Amino acid sequence: MSAPQPLLYERVARIIEQQIASGTLRSHDRIPSVRAMSRTARVSVSTVVQAYLHLESAGLITARPQSGFYVSVPRSDCLPEPEPRAVHSTRPRSVVGEVLDTCLEAMCRTDVLPLNCAMASPTFYPNSRLSNLTREVLRDHPLHAGEILMPPGDLDLRREIAKRMALVGSPTDPDEVIITSGAMDAITLALRVLCKPGDTVLVESPTYFGILQAIEYSGLKVVEVVNRPTDGIDVEGVRQAIRATPVAAAILMPNCNNPTGSLTPDAAKQALVTALTDAGIPIIEDEVHGDLYRGVQSPRSLRAFDRSGLVLSCGSVSKTIAAGFRIGWVVSSHFSREIARAKFFSSLACPTLQQRVLARYYASGGYDRFLRGLRQAIAVNTERMTEAVRRYFPKGTKITQPAGGVVLWVELPPAVDSLELFRSALDARIGIFPGIVFSATAKYRNYIRLNCGLPWSQAVEKAMERLGQLAASQ
Amino acid sequence: MSAPQPLLYERVARIIEQQIASGTLRSHDRIPSVRAMSRTARVSVSTVVQAYLHLESAGLITARPQSGFYVSVPRSDCLPEPEPRAVHSTRPRSVVGEVLDTCLEAMCRTDVLPLNCAMASPTFYPNSRLSNLTREVLRDHPLHAGEILMPPGDLDLRREIAKRMALVGSPTDPDEVIITSGAMDAITLALRVLCKPGDTVLVESPTYFGILQAIEYSGLKVVEVVNRPTDGIDVEGVRQAIRATPVAAAILMPNCNNPTGSLTPDAAKQALVTALTDAGIPIIEDEVHGDLYRGVQSPRSLRAFDRSGLVLSCGSVSKTIAAGFRIGWVVSSHFSREIARAKFFSSLACPTLQQRVLARYYASGGYDRFLRGLRQAIAVNTERMTEAVRRYFPKGTKITQPAGGVVLWVELPPAVDSLELFRSALDARIGIFPGIVFSATAKYRNYIRLNCGLPWSQAVEKAMERLGQLAASQ
Repeated sequence: MSAPQPLLYERVARIIEQQIASGTLRSHDRIPSVRAMSRTARVSVSTVVQAYLHLESAGLITARPQSGFYVSVPRSDCLPEPEPRAVHSTRPRSVVGEVLDTCLEAMCRTDVLPLNCAMASPTFYPNSRLSNLTREVLRDHPLHAGEILMPPGDLDLRREIAKRMALVGSPTDPDEVIITSGAMDAITLALRVLCKPGDTVLVESPTYFGILQAIEYSGLKVVEVVNRPTDGIDVEGVRQAIRATPVAAAILMPNCNNPTGSLTPDAAKQALVTALTDAGIPIIEDEVHGDLYRGVQSPRSLRAFDRSGLVLSCGSVSKTIAAGFRIGWVVSSHFSREIARAKFFSSLACPTLQQRVLARYYASGGYDRFLRGLRQAIAVNTERMTEAVRRYFPKGTKITQPAGGVVLWVELPPAVDSLELFRSALDARIGIFPGIVFSATAKYRNYIRLNCGLPWSQAVEKAMERLGQLAASQ
Repeated sequence: MSAPQPLLYERVARIIEQQIASGTLRSHDRIPSVRAMSRTARVSVSTVVQAYLHLESAGLITARPQSGFYVSVPRSDCLPEPEPRAVHSTRPRSVVGEVLDTCLEAMCRTDVLPLNCAMASPTFYPNSRLSNLTREVLRDHPLHAGEILMPPGDLDLRREIAKRMALVGSPTDPDEVIITSGAMDAITLALRVLCKPGDTVLVESPTYFGILQAIEYSGLKVVEVVNRPTDGIDVEGVRQAIRATPVAAAILMPNCNNPTGSLTPDAAKQALVTALTDAGIPIIEDEVHGDLYRGVQSPRSLRAFDRSGLVLSCGSVSKTIAAGFRIGWVVSSHFSREIARAKFFSSLACPTLQQRVLARYYASGGYDRFLRGLRQAIAVNTERMTEAVRRYFPKGTKITQPAGGVVLWVELPPAVDSLELFRSALDARIGIFPGIVFSATAKYRNYIRLNCGLPWSQAVEKAMERLGQLAASQ
């Protein structure tokens, strides 16, 4: 406040300068009229004129007769550099959290080959069918933009999801289904309802890093039990963990664990549900990969083995139908009303249009046929990726044989630091996920996760070759 | 487990029975083929046939030659009643919380006149223009269903929001804008980033009940300062509160408080920002009603008075352009990266389609003209509603003269219990919000909030007359 106050016209000029520097206003963009700026900045018209003349003489804007002022084509020497922005962190972050930040930035880069996602390429989704259904819904619901579908969400969609639940052994009442903004929203809401800060949540190791972060953000602690690539969740490990530690909830991925791709057999599912629910511990099942199981039909939900009402099953359309729709759900007997309320008070509702489009998509049939094709395509990709790992990666590398899902979990020789590999791969514009983010205790230093959702191509093959070289050269 | 095990065919029959009872399967729906059910239920084909014959003889399903089995038109006497479902509550709820549950249920009822929302009727939104833009985006982005726009979200939309921020006195870099699932998501994410469980948040009294609930769900405590219907937030009250209590963040609604509709003047805004940010306290500004200010132009954002980077401004399109899109944003200098990360780990991203449609909507111009029309329509409604309160409500009733927004805050005579009024109104299929939910301490027992977003009609007039009678008869 003790710095000299800028003159009025300088203040106005600075508003425009900053917008140009930040990219808010770009070359050829029209800037506000003198009159509009005078109102906005609450200064006289003559002050604005003075400001604009100043900007013009600095080469930042150009007047066009009868039209107004426009942003000039920039000469790099006349543009002020945007100031570096301090990032204040109010929460201490774990090492894994800091690593994840870099991973997320890599996922946003369009110049990086996305072997880091766990997702099929956009071309694999039923885009044109969904576009047609969207046009239908726009026609049939002319007021769609103004309409909110309050939680639990669109009844038609909830009925369709209830039908799908019956196919995985868990007949469901539509009232037990709550529509959410994808499965991560579903899991976050379930944690809100089931846990209070400081509670401990049981998870698999390895498990999806998003689950670990959601737990961290909710102020919860973690206890880990092993998920084996061959046969999934270690039931005896779960029994021991809940004897040793009071656990408020478990988050489990019995059907195609991310990252291992393992399937937990039905007998183990039954034993898990019994062990946990007998102890009064609710189970949040992450079921997003179940439909990508390689077998003839989707494996059973943990809910199929539950008589207590304590299993909440979370799913989404992100891995199969429409990642860009951001629609998922929770299915729960006992907690449906509480989840709906938590949804209302965290983000009110899900978009109206997507809910209606998806309800029509399921109802109009053909999803299972589509799914068979998708599974087949991912299985073929996974085979090619596996071959590439065998061919290019250093001796001693081990690979999972996933029962389903869309990723490979690769164990490199113990000497390889996958964090280093992640960084050198990113320099080569190849995205991968380093193993340490899949555990709360930063295990799996010599593991990486690879996406098998990209159509096989020379670019993918070359990237795999390069990854192998980078791993071998450490 | 000691109950006699049902026979195999009875188990299969029960799956279908339950789906019919719950409404998952409805009259004329086709039920799974014998072969499909045999696979799903893992029983022999003959067991399924036995089950279906049993269902047929019970009148629940009908065989159609060459086609399969269909759900019969129900005779009410043959359908088992769905069992009442126990609702387990794991979190103790406040009295206000319990009242809110009933309020939310009322909001979901289509047979209730929605004087309870704070929202214009769907007909007031620019539906057809948005539909046209949606068709354009579908055409230009054929892979939209498979594409995710990772946080912070679509750059074009963020640029448009940055431009709008300049109009409320707060020039903004697009990198400071994070797209969220509406403003409640924005506020929830901001609380996640700024506070840890047990912290205290400063709010206005009265304030939007959703804010109070988001705070409760985040495990936070509340300290209240007065918002006066005439001149908004009590600055001296804020100063005293932060001297008396350590406060982690403030959530303020200076532009058209919900429910009072008050505007906090610029001088008070400056004083608020100075008092709070000098004390290092971040401010979460709820700006969703700012564009519905009745004056010539939208009032200034608190961010316009901030030099510390500690003000986070939260907005959305829900009150103006598209309630059904569920798109909002946070604008923040210091916390943008943290908010983007929190978004990623709570619901990954916002729908691709809506972000692109809104970017085009803003860019193609006409929003301000549309807004003038909307404000005008709401102002006229508010006038009619005010007249109706004067005409029909008991003597001693006081009404706000809102500076903007879409609601009226009505103070009934002290003897009136608005919770009773809420319940009797609901019996008469009129939705209102009772005053007590707008405060963490259950104040405002004789207040109600009324929506002014419905087109004036005889139904609204009659409802207002009835409300007045119900209030007078207490």
